Amino acid sequence: MSTLSTKRIVLAARPVGRAKEDDFRLEQVPVPDPGPGQLLLRTRYLSLDPYMRGRMDEAVAIGDVMVGQSVVDVLVSDRPDYKAGDIVLAQTGWQTLSISNGEKLRKLDATDFPITTGLGVLGMPGFTAYVGMRLIGQPKRGETVVVAAASGPVGSLVGQLARITGARAVGIAGGPDKCAFVKDELGFDAAIDHRAPDFEQTLAAACPDGIDVYFENVGGAVWTAAWPLLNRLARVPVCGLVSQFGQQIPPGPDRLPATMRQILVKGLTVRGFINSDFLDLFPDFLREVGAGVRSSLIKYREDVVDSLENAPKAFIGMLEGRNFGKVVVRVAD
Amino acid sequence: MSTLSTKRIVLAARPVGRAKEDDFRLEQVPVPDPGPGQLLLRTRYLSLDPYMRGRMDEAVAIGDVMVGQSVVDVLVSDRPDYKAGDIVLAQTGWQTLSISNGEKLRKLDATDFPITTGLGVLGMPGFTAYVGMRLIGQPKRGETVVVAAASGPVGSLVGQLARITGARAVGIAGGPDKCAFVKDELGFDAAIDHRAPDFEQTLAAACPDGIDVYFENVGGAVWTAAWPLLNRLARVPVCGLVSQFGQQIPPGPDRLPATMRQILVKGLTVRGFINSDFLDLFPDFLREVGAGVRSSLIKYREDVVDSLENAPKAFIGMLEGRNFGKVVVRVAD
Repeated sequence: MSTLSTKRIVLAARPVGRAKEDDFRLEQVPVPDPGPGQLLLRTRYLSLDPYMRGRMDEAVAIGDVMVGQSVVDVLVSDRPDYKAGDIVLAQTGWQTLSISNGEKLRKLDATDFPITTGLGVLGMPGFTAYVGMRLIGQPKRGETVVVAAASGPVGSLVGQLARITGARAVGIAGGPDKCAFVKDELGFDAAIDHRAPDFEQTLAAACPDGIDVYFENVGGAVWTAAWPLLNRLARVPVCGLVSQFGQQIPPGPDRLPATMRQILVKGLTVRGFINSDFLDLFPDFLREVGAGVRSSLIKYREDVVDSLENAPKAFIGMLEGRNFGKVVVRVAD
Repeated sequence: MSTLSTKRIVLAARPVGRAKEDDFRLEQVPVPDPGPGQLLLRTRYLSLDPYMRGRMDEAVAIGDVMVGQSVVDVLVSDRPDYKAGDIVLAQTGWQTLSISNGEKLRKLDATDFPITTGLGVLGMPGFTAYVGMRLIGQPKRGETVVVAAASGPVGSLVGQLARITGARAVGIAGGPDKCAFVKDELGFDAAIDHRAPDFEQTLAAACPDGIDVYFENVGGAVWTAAWPLLNRLARVPVCGLVSQFGQQIPPGPDRLPATMRQILVKGLTVRGFINSDFLDLFPDFLREVGAGVRSSLIKYREDVVDSLENAPKAFIGMLEGRNFGKVVVRVAD
């Protein structure tokens, strides 16, 4: 019998409104020996992403390990397609060691890109930006693209993809440091601080020709500010509504009828998408965005947090915008 | 100087809530002689369409002729491209005689289809159905398509186009006669009476596999009933919201955040469109739907009202669902 044990973070309680540290619990439990066709995986980097907040409301049972993607080492393999020492992307959840039956794994070519990029610019966040822009946003030269969380892994690529097609990119971020990064490092045409008291006016001033693509990843006040600026035939890819998590049903007035009226009158496209529905585009994404990263045409920033124990705090901080770049937890080097 | 005069219906007052007959006024005014490059047109059939209610709120000035498309005879032409006796589609508005500078006209081939079809199944209403289904709805074999006002010119073609692609068509209409027509004559798979007290349950029962395309042309209670039935990746072409005209901003709760959440979670597409943005598809539409009408694969129904004086009453009746088929006013034979 195995003497190994895993540290893991489980869901201790369903969040009421904002997630807090008490909603998580650190455990140490034995790991069984891998059986026939199974792998033993050791987590090196765990990805923290806003969608996990949604999972806490329903999909993850109380007492279960928090879900999440990670970069792992294969320690033991009873599968012909993997060998000890392989570096792989896996859906391990928030834990140090785990058993896999080989599903939902993808080998990383460690010689080519830093392995953490598989969780960010060359992983699901980057793919989310790519799918939303390629399928829905489809910016044209001279159009204006607006995205929030612009220093984060989705927003930063949305704006850079817009720039590559010749569109104007306007990023929204929290605070002067992030705004400077968005404008000076990522090359957006403008960066707006959503904490500024005159946020709505500043956004309007940064979009003198209106908005043709509003890439929706936050909802709430940013939506409210961007909505009146949408041009005829504008596109709104919806990949996230992080500001709405845990929100109660708000009081009136009911904005839905007026919103539908604008969708009709302006001929708007509002389309939600989940990138796993479009995995046939993943090879294109890796080739195109990979080439951009390799040539430094596309830039990215990671915010690396040390040790699994700090994952809940880092996750809560990310939801509140205290991260700066794609959040990954270094679980083991 | 001309001794001709035109009868015309002008906007007398902006409607408060529902349009009423007092919001219109019948006038008789002189018609000038057509000048160089101009045409004198005599209206034969005037189209009444729900979009006109929206125009009454803003686009039409008080005292101006109500806007609208019509089938006209050319009485006098000072243009080489038209001659007296031509039958033409024109934007004359609600009047018996009018002057045109030749813009926004389209000759009808009177030998091929009844000329009134140019205002309905082979005109803008039919084209609205075609554009919404081809660009946005895109039903696949076995999917379920739901449309309201299913005995009207847009809804009837939406359902028939769905059937032609092998999808199920569920129509919503007001009263047993219209429902029988939708099911028995137009060949929809099911027809639901929106006046039935158990409308929501009946609609759900008629859509056992959910809804893949909800073609939105009414809004209001039908939207509320259809929305929870939408399947993942469903499409919602929005071409009209006739139930909302004149509506005040409704009280809460604010349904917008929950709606956006469903758009995200289900990967829905909600897209408004105005068919004049897609006129490059008009030749395809005329060829495809024309062939269907010629072979009687596609059926249509017209509700012909006599004389211009009755246009306001017929228009109000149409907004309240008292018409049965595409409403045209026979202004002169």
